[in-house]
Amino acid sequence: MVKKLTPMSEDFNQWYTEIVQSADLADYSPVKGTMVIKPYGYALWENIQAYLDKRFKETGHQNAYFPMFIPKSFIEKEAEHVEGFSPELATVTHAGGKELEEPLIVRPTSETIINHMFSKWISSHRDLPMLINQWSNVVRWEMRTRLFLRTSEFLWQEGHTAHATEDEAREESLKMLDIYEEFARDIAAVSVIKGTKSEMEKFAGATTTYSIEAMMNDLKALQAGTSHELGQNFSKAFDIKFSDENNKLQHPFQTSWGVSTRLVGMIIMAHGDDKGLKLPPELAPHQVVIVPIIPNEDERSRVLNAVNKLIESLDNVRVFIDDRPEVSPGFKFNEWEQKGVPIRIEVGPKDIDNESVLIYRRDDESKNQYPFEGIDSVVDKTLKDIQKNLLTTSENTVKSNTYHVDSYDELIETLNDKKGFVSCFWDENKEDEIKVKEKTSATLRCYPINNKEIEKSVNSKDNDGNFAIFSKAY
Amino acid sequence: MVKKLTPMSEDFNQWYTEIVQSADLADYSPVKGTMVIKPYGYALWENIQAYLDKRFKETGHQNAYFPMFIPKSFIEKEAEHVEGFSPELATVTHAGGKELEEPLIVRPTSETIINHMFSKWISSHRDLPMLINQWSNVVRWEMRTRLFLRTSEFLWQEGHTAHATEDEAREESLKMLDIYEEFARDIAAVSVIKGTKSEMEKFAGATTTYSIEAMMNDLKALQAGTSHELGQNFSKAFDIKFSDENNKLQHPFQTSWGVSTRLVGMIIMAHGDDKGLKLPPELAPHQVVIVPIIPNEDERSRVLNAVNKLIESLDNVRVFIDDRPEVSPGFKFNEWEQKGVPIRIEVGPKDIDNESVLIYRRDDESKNQYPFEGIDSVVDKTLKDIQKNLLTTSENTVKSNTYHVDSYDELIETLNDKKGFVSCFWDENKEDEIKVKEKTSATLRCYPINNKEIEKSVNSKDNDGNFAIFSKAY
Repeated sequence: MVKKLTPMSEDFNQWYTEIVQSADLADYSPVKGTMVIKPYGYALWENIQAYLDKRFKETGHQNAYFPMFIPKSFIEKEAEHVEGFSPELATVTHAGGKELEEPLIVRPTSETIINHMFSKWISSHRDLPMLINQWSNVVRWEMRTRLFLRTSEFLWQEGHTAHATEDEAREESLKMLDIYEEFARDIAAVSVIKGTKSEMEKFAGATTTYSIEAMMNDLKALQAGTSHELGQNFSKAFDIKFSDENNKLQHPFQTSWGVSTRLVGMIIMAHGDDKGLKLPPELAPHQVVIVPIIPNEDERSRVLNAVNKLIESLDNVRVFIDDRPEVSPGFKFNEWEQKGVPIRIEVGPKDIDNESVLIYRRDDESKNQYPFEGIDSVVDKTLKDIQKNLLTTSENTVKSNTYHVDSYDELIETLNDKKGFVSCFWDENKEDEIKVKEKTSATLRCYPINNKEIEKSVNSKDNDGNFAIFSKAY
Repeated sequence: MVKKLTPMSEDFNQWYTEIVQSADLADYSPVKGTMVIKPYGYALWENIQAYLDKRFKETGHQNAYFPMFIPKSFIEKEAEHVEGFSPELATVTHAGGKELEEPLIVRPTSETIINHMFSKWISSHRDLPMLINQWSNVVRWEMRTRLFLRTSEFLWQEGHTAHATEDEAREESLKMLDIYEEFARDIAAVSVIKGTKSEMEKFAGATTTYSIEAMMNDLKALQAGTSHELGQNFSKAFDIKFSDENNKLQHPFQTSWGVSTRLVGMIIMAHGDDKGLKLPPELAPHQVVIVPIIPNEDERSRVLNAVNKLIESLDNVRVFIDDRPEVSPGFKFNEWEQKGVPIRIEVGPKDIDNESVLIYRRDDESKNQYPFEGIDSVVDKTLKDIQKNLLTTSENTVKSNTYHVDSYDELIETLNDKKGFVSCFWDENKEDEIKVKEKTSATLRCYPINNKEIEKSVNSKDNDGNFAIFSKAY
């Protein structure tokens, strides 16, 4: 029997924990706080990587690899940065049978080591912009962990760039934010809000942090990607200098930006339902699973011949044939529904007699019979429909669960009474932000970029505020 | 000026160190023994990965990801394995601001943690074969390091599989060895010898280790990839059991196999010459570099138009246009020769007048004028020729520098007097092997698989021996 999941509505966290393991995405590892990404989960991550890597390269970035071990003194060079990370660091003290003279930090992010190298590589304006990306593992020691969302080791990409001017650096960080949004929308089928982080929530060491914020099916927010303007903080700390066109030495302006295996968690929580995953076709390891229905041995070869013909006609699609003899079709249906495969095709003797097949859509659970002739274009169109439908559903979830408030009391009340996003006009103020968090456990997710309106703020009698979104978040 | 290299013939090690940095493949990092892989070197690694990953998947393997930190007790479970690795381990003792109860080892290889997971995932013969691969970083603390060849952290892939029978495991390990050979031959254009390692040189924990051995341009051997039969060593140590078809509990037979960024070192040393790299077209980040020759500003647009037409006709090729205004064509020629780009195309006003372009081949340094019409098929054919020529050259290097000896004295003499491989019939014996190493610094590279002859051995009066190859090695 495929394991029945705790319904989302009953206990969302429990549902999440169960589906991650039941759908073979990941498993707990013997080292507390770390995870094993199983082949089905890793295939999802590979598809995420493939799209982003292509887009990074199209926009002029090159991949490189920097050491995972960072001298402790490096981490300490940028003051705000070290303060942000120090509780989360893992330290290598012994190597090669000896105690090390200087302990090595396992990278929590690579700003320090990469900027040390940039200081060797950059000397002229001709070396700029320098546009580097790294795919790697990083370690941030976490006390309370959750598979994919928050683990002590995770996989990610980190872009690091250096530019001659502040404008160019800003343009770069916003361009990469756009790529993250485009990925979320067009590939992961998740509606996200692009915005600027408050001072309190920004990355340690950044001058400005931008993020994309998504709404999960329990109506909590998930920060799904960040892009930072670093100003000259690191270029000054690491003494990166270039001679400009007038032969004057300048510190470059920098950015960094990253997304991680957390995106897998986003896809699970944004689309899933009580039956399990719903994977967007653009990312699904298997876009179509074919289940042959073989009522008796006499029918075997006739059914398998039809399946083979079907596969041939679907050569542009990622197809998996589940021909396991030891489990029933019903078991397979449940398993692939739980694993979120967008389309299931059933082929049995009756279908063959009718020269048709049955197509089940995971997104709306509809079942329809289609003639075998021209099935390739039906599948193609259905995959596109599912992709679109998942995005529309995600957009509607955000729309139906975002509330606008005009007063402070209403803000607190709504955050406590309703699930979802609450927007208001907010006068940037750290103390007020902390108070909201204490009263509601919600945080200021971002100031959306696409809403530049300024109106009377809810938290200050005298000042106007920027349009802001608050929400409980992962 | 492009930096002139120390000639190979004068000092091969110095040449290697210089070319790695001068060609922008890698750089030293501030942490002793680790390296930064620069974009040009990383692009080469990405092309290596792309080919191997495709072949692994075609042969039924799935990628996954396992934690980098391994409990110390795990490493100690397989006795021979821990003995082999203990001097090279890096240890995390502190994390999240606290001393850890059990120190964590940064993976030197992942047999232990993966087999711990296999013990949870494998219960029935239906779970077999289990065919897993991981792309990751690993750490083996090294005292004497060399960029790409031996660094404390390196990138690699490690395959880990479990099978119901010993025969199946053997078949798997030999299949993966074949894929490594095929990669070396068809993609890296390097002739390799497949063989079995002696007891002394095999992987700690394996029952049999196979390797591919290549000859570098200084005539030393490089072990370029290994594939291991692990027998039941790990399945017993980690208590992996499956119920067979008769419902009896059995320990599976296992394999592991890996190649690393060391392959980049192989490509440098197998093909390079005094002028620098010679990259095989299948792997070269740029297969063709176009250098526009612009004698004066009046000619600029005419030349650039011709270059654009050229690029359009080469749309199946990885082309790079070097249109930097600040450096001369001569500088560019030297730089791209050093960086080993297989084909350089020069386009200047005279070429345009003649409706032709000049093609320079890096492998044989020939220059020829070809009509612009049909240039795509000329480039295509030339890339294939270069690929083939590099392999032929590699094969000839091995042939011309392999000596067969029939006596022990001759073995020692030849290893001391000649560079290259020395073959003989050898009666497997650890003590004798150590003596040869002491006298010559050469090691038994392998017993070639393709030579099963047995003849009177050079090291034992009474016993026959297997065909073996000795050589100095990296």
